[in-house]
Amino acid sequence: MPVNVAVYGLGPIGSLIAKKVLEREDLNLVAAFDIAPEKVGKDLGEVLQWDKKVGVLVEHDINSETVLKNNNVDIVLHSTSTYLDKIYPQLVRCIKSTADIISTSETLCNPWYRYPEMATLIDELAKKYCVTVLGTGVNPGFIFDTLPATLTACCTKVEKIHAIRSLDASKRRFSFQKKYGLSLSVNEFNELLNRGQITAHVGYAESIDMLATALGIKLDRIVEGQEPLVAERPLKTDYFNISVGQVSGIHGYGIGYLNGKEFIKIELFAEVGREEFEEIRIEGEPPIAWRSCGTAGDIATAAMVINMIPKVLSSKPGLIRMLDIPFPSAFIKLKIG
Amino acid sequence: MPVNVAVYGLGPIGSLIAKKVLEREDLNLVAAFDIAPEKVGKDLGEVLQWDKKVGVLVEHDINSETVLKNNNVDIVLHSTSTYLDKIYPQLVRCIKSTADIISTSETLCNPWYRYPEMATLIDELAKKYCVTVLGTGVNPGFIFDTLPATLTACCTKVEKIHAIRSLDASKRRFSFQKKYGLSLSVNEFNELLNRGQITAHVGYAESIDMLATALGIKLDRIVEGQEPLVAERPLKTDYFNISVGQVSGIHGYGIGYLNGKEFIKIELFAEVGREEFEEIRIEGEPPIAWRSCGTAGDIATAAMVINMIPKVLSSKPGLIRMLDIPFPSAFIKLKIG
Repeated sequence: MPVNVAVYGLGPIGSLIAKKVLEREDLNLVAAFDIAPEKVGKDLGEVLQWDKKVGVLVEHDINSETVLKNNNVDIVLHSTSTYLDKIYPQLVRCIKSTADIISTSETLCNPWYRYPEMATLIDELAKKYCVTVLGTGVNPGFIFDTLPATLTACCTKVEKIHAIRSLDASKRRFSFQKKYGLSLSVNEFNELLNRGQITAHVGYAESIDMLATALGIKLDRIVEGQEPLVAERPLKTDYFNISVGQVSGIHGYGIGYLNGKEFIKIELFAEVGREEFEEIRIEGEPPIAWRSCGTAGDIATAAMVINMIPKVLSSKPGLIRMLDIPFPSAFIKLKIG
Repeated sequence: MPVNVAVYGLGPIGSLIAKKVLEREDLNLVAAFDIAPEKVGKDLGEVLQWDKKVGVLVEHDINSETVLKNNNVDIVLHSTSTYLDKIYPQLVRCIKSTADIISTSETLCNPWYRYPEMATLIDELAKKYCVTVLGTGVNPGFIFDTLPATLTACCTKVEKIHAIRSLDASKRRFSFQKKYGLSLSVNEFNELLNRGQITAHVGYAESIDMLATALGIKLDRIVEGQEPLVAERPLKTDYFNISVGQVSGIHGYGIGYLNGKEFIKIELFAEVGREEFEEIRIEGEPPIAWRSCGTAGDIATAAMVINMIPKVLSSKPGLIRMLDIPFPSAFIKLKIG
């Protein structure tokens, strides 16, 4: 029997999730939510810029609790905002409808790190309504936390974990390039970053804290930061012209210290023209190093959200993290067990 | 409070597991078993060829149930034989002592594939005595199953999975080189392989079946095989001189078919002088490829066994597989929860 799914938020990622859910026979997309006046009230097919209707009207998110209940939604795939305080009321409505939730909200991946009190409230409410809530995505959710943790399974000793993600910002969508500050001056970048008006990547500390938890250790402290990378020659993307000296991308990092030494280091290079790869190195016994040819970000985040559906549906109630579920994987055909 | 551990089997892998357990403060090695007359009755330190005693006498495995009970053993790390029918009586004794079990037995990784009836018996007995039984190792247990499954989590579509492990047989221990048939003639190799007198790698089909289960699919069929690789120039290891035309290693494979097409393909190249690497390629949306610099086999198997201790101690009773536990990782300090 197909699982009834709702998509909550129809931005770039939410729309991609909706499309991928609609392609599957084992998932039944029965509801969709957004707040944008140009989307609410329209058929989801139209909002996705398809030339066919899908028979689901996009509802305003304020009505989500009732709509979710009326459509017997089993699970909400949520993709609206990065910060938990912003999405909190949305989560409450979903929980009260008794639907499970998987969200791309970066801070919800490991909400006890940045929002411990709000995390406790969500956990309590989820248990009361017997639903499961999980935050995930390709990053945070996989490359900087779940995967490095998994790779340590072959080590009898772990002395340091170093994960690098390098990506070509020119290959990403407009909204990605904008939130990474492309073509800004260094001063503008730093000012907007400090004011929270550009975010670049969020979740370095969340990933490090989750990885440390998986390994059963308590870090002394975690630091994180992002700095602009600057064009040394004129660069061009589909959306931005970048002059010499303007921001061509970012270098972001998080470092977790154990006994005063760097124990976990994660680094993101997102710049126009960068080689695409991920690399995870574990110093230990034995030393281990894995390197990829890069993981397409948006589609991988949509995949993580959809692929965790069977895991979340069969998980115990509460607010959980990737480290609480059986190991992640795609599912070709849905089996709940 | 340290966990009480027993090591069952003191061959190359079991001895390595014992050493690594003895290095940890959060694990308390309280019992050890073997059948070899030259080991039984001796101090474990002596058997491990250390110059100090560890205060644990190696017991004959026939006495394991009583010894495990008397020492309040929480978990047995078991490493004796590949085939489940051979280790079945050993597992029964451990289960009856009410200790959990983690075993390197390749066929126990996914025992429902080759020994469905025996697997059911073990599962029932484990549930009766409220213990958990898991088979694991670097391979099967990780490189050809758990890790490829994990990497599919970033894919919305999976069309084919291809995993390759390539290793330099000259860098492995004597018993490894012997079981891979180094320096035999091709005829001798094939005859001994057919008679089961050399095994090379066991577990291709177990890995493929487990990977398919993780993805929620039922394969049409699984084929597996191993063929000798032949020296094109004289080769030498610490233990064997290999002439031109003699066996220099093996190529082994397993293929899982879905709808008549290759869906999962795993390949092992274990040959003198081969480059050491692992590679996992997923054809799908998005395509994904990860490659390692190789994973040292024995120590990684010891690591998998030890690292799964907290997962098994907190798992539900029964005979479980890697796909039933929270995602694998090392643990730096033991936390049971």
